[in-house]
Amino acid sequence: MVVDTVDTARREQGRRGFSDIMTFDPPDDTSPATTGLLDFVFAEVWSRPGLSRRDRRFVTLACVADADAPQPLDDHVYAALNSGDVSIVEMREAVLHFAVYAGWPKASRLNGVVDAQWARIHAERGTEAPPPEPLLPLTTASDPEERLQGGERHFAEINCLPFAPARDNPYQGAGILNFVFGEMWVRPGLDMKARRLITVACVAFQDAPIPIDSHVYAALKSGDVSFDEMDELALHFAVYSGWPKASHLNGVIAAQQARVRAEREAA
Amino acid sequence: MVVDTVDTARREQGRRGFSDIMTFDPPDDTSPATTGLLDFVFAEVWSRPGLSRRDRRFVTLACVADADAPQPLDDHVYAALNSGDVSIVEMREAVLHFAVYAGWPKASRLNGVVDAQWARIHAERGTEAPPPEPLLPLTTASDPEERLQGGERHFAEINCLPFAPARDNPYQGAGILNFVFGEMWVRPGLDMKARRLITVACVAFQDAPIPIDSHVYAALKSGDVSFDEMDELALHFAVYSGWPKASHLNGVIAAQQARVRAEREAA
Amino acid sequence: MVVDTVDTARREQGRRGFSDIMTFDPPDDTSPATTGLLDFVFAEVWSRPGLSRRDRRFVTLACVADADAPQPLDDHVYAALNSGDVSIVEMREAVLHFAVYAGWPKASRLNGVVDAQWARIHAERGTEAPPPEPLLPLTTASDPEERLQGGERHFAEINCLPFAPARDNPYQGAGILNFVFGEMWVRPGLDMKARRLITVACVAFQDAPIPIDSHVYAALKSGDVSFDEMDELALHFAVYSGWPKASHLNGVIAAQQARVRAEREAA
Repeated sequence: MVVDTVDTARREQGRRGFSDIMTFDPPDDTSPATTGLLDFVFAEVWSRPGLSRRDRRFVTLACVADADAPQPLDDHVYAALNSGDVSIVEMREAVLHFAVYAGWPKASRLNGVVDAQWARIHAERGTEAPPPEPLLPLTTASDPEERLQGGERHFAEINCLPFAPARDNPYQGAGILNFVFGEMWVRPGLDMKARRLITVACVAFQDAPIPIDSHVYAALKSGDVSFDEMDELALHFAVYSGWPKASHLNGVIAAQQARVRAEREAA
Repeated sequence: MVVDTVDTARREQGRRGFSDIMTFDPPDDTSPATTGLLDFVFAEVWSRPGLSRRDRRFVTLACVADADAPQPLDDHVYAALNSGDVSIVEMREAVLHFAVYAGWPKASRLNGVVDAQWARIHAERGTEAPPPEPLLPLTTASDPEERLQGGERHFAEINCLPFAPARDNPYQGAGILNFVFGEMWVRPGLDMKARRLITVACVAFQDAPIPIDSHVYAALKSGDVSFDEMDELALHFAVYSGWPKASHLNGVIAAQQARVRAEREAA
Repeated sequence: MVVDTVDTARREQGRRGFSDIMTFDPPDDTSPATTGLLDFVFAEVWSRPGLSRRDRRFVTLACVADADAPQPLDDHVYAALNSGDVSIVEMREAVLHFAVYAGWPKASRLNGVVDAQWARIHAERGTEAPPPEPLLPLTTASDPEERLQGGERHFAEINCLPFAPARDNPYQGAGILNFVFGEMWVRPGLDMKARRLITVACVAFQDAPIPIDSHVYAALKSGDVSFDEMDELALHFAVYSGWPKASHLNGVIAAQQARVRAEREAA
């Protein structure tokens, strides 16, 4: 006879954590991947203090939208909206922010999932989804030169840098200055901390060496994300995007914390 | 005694193909990955007729920029520019196009690699890199309402669809209509076929189900990419982004070819 | 005063597990990502019975080579070779197998890492790396028609299917039949179980819907990977490529186990 060595208290905590966070019942199967999900991810990680449940939502949403698994994506979009942790206006802005940092095809799917899960929540509640917020007027300038100037100013502020990139390069000028920092980052509807969390998750799965350094630095330097929150983010990210990328992120965080600390001491 | 059964004619063809395409000497090591690269990728794939060498450059560049391996990225950017197959203006527009379809962090790295390899080529030639093309004036409208209207029109034309998405959604309105189709796709400097090839590669590695269908359809429907070229693209993509994703792409291509053929017959 | 609630026995087990598996000392930092790595990944996952340590190596290597984090990749290649769990001949064949299922750019980097870590191991031991094995005699035909015929036969055998794909499509003919099954899968130097484990990890991170079904099915149907080993693989994969993709894989495994079980009962 096989002795059952399941730690039942831990499993029970995982099941309660799952129900609470996902807003529906945990799965019943006993496969290693599912029991690991309950015993580790929901019993131990989500309940840790360093990062709020709302903050963890934005990291999770970015990671599952990158990961391409249909069911987890549906489930996490549903849970974020159904719990009330993320409003529909914030969620729709998050899709645009994610599009920039993870690519439009994945964002297109996420956009469709948001529509479907928002409709499902209203169907379950017997209510009607409110009409979308009107897009116009934009809060940013229309004139190309003014947009570029705004983009240069916002780029420097948001990245905590004393300069902006050169304009006469399509990626930097028409892209980064004109759209990404000239318009997208400064749209209303989503607070700066949420934008930082999504961005850090995205640069961590996209793997390019300089953006991961610069966005971890700016999130810490601006004070939008505390040192402890950023440490905790690396563990949460490990669960949803895998340990190798998280190990790399963890090393980047340590280096950028040292850099910000040195700058504060020198100030 | 081990009889060396290397097919020397095939190996020689691979070495010649490598030199010709990469514009530098092939590696000398005899590891299976390197000999497979020579015997299959360079002896058999790049030399196939279905897709021109220039066309293969755009697919390759998108795939290696997604794949995050530094040396292959340096090598393929260098080879595309050094061979003259892709001009620096086209390459810089390709970076912006890639940013939208694969995510800005990866594009940021690609942008830096282009700068470095372009400088290297000029250093090797003892020449000076010409100054960048000026960004302004934009060829697209500045007024937000006009940009959205232009975006709606270009979205329909480029996607070969009779409609455009709803505006009052940040992803679709501020993103797709205002920037992606309101500005990016219609910028000068890169022809429509090259944009199609980059896009198809990106939607194939991004994995979201609807964008891969719609962009393969539009590339075929518009006639910018022929049926045979698209079939050949799936093989080239397999080499650079892996067979599982290519297998999926190959199935999508067959379905979209059938759809376009049926529409042509019905017309 | 903060009471230290670390489970010291679990942490100690994690540190011992790390040393044993990685063949070097565990990190000393107490960041959440590192303590999670010790307390969960090394204390609990690697020591589970369902999958041997050697089997876990092949899954891990594929996942870290996909994940693009430089240090974890160096570390796991080093550990796999230094422990003796994977021989250099097997490792070099694994790189070629990985190239096909994850794309050549990532494999090219992996190939370089293998060279560097193999040299490092010999430097540490004060020995000289043996000369590379002469490229093993190809067991496959040179004649194109014979290669295609062999590819069709091996495709059916390895995929446990009664048919092979049509030849007259570049992806399927020149790619799948001529090279992937006409040559790569039947090379000597790496056993079928290791090839199955690498392939399942790759189709799980590549996300294409049909290859994940067909390769999980074939691994189970052939008996090369047992039902329990495959269940365990999903948990190991969760750690290295993230839970969303692993949840999807876990669902595919359940479905393919049911399919194989039904076929066995019907036989």
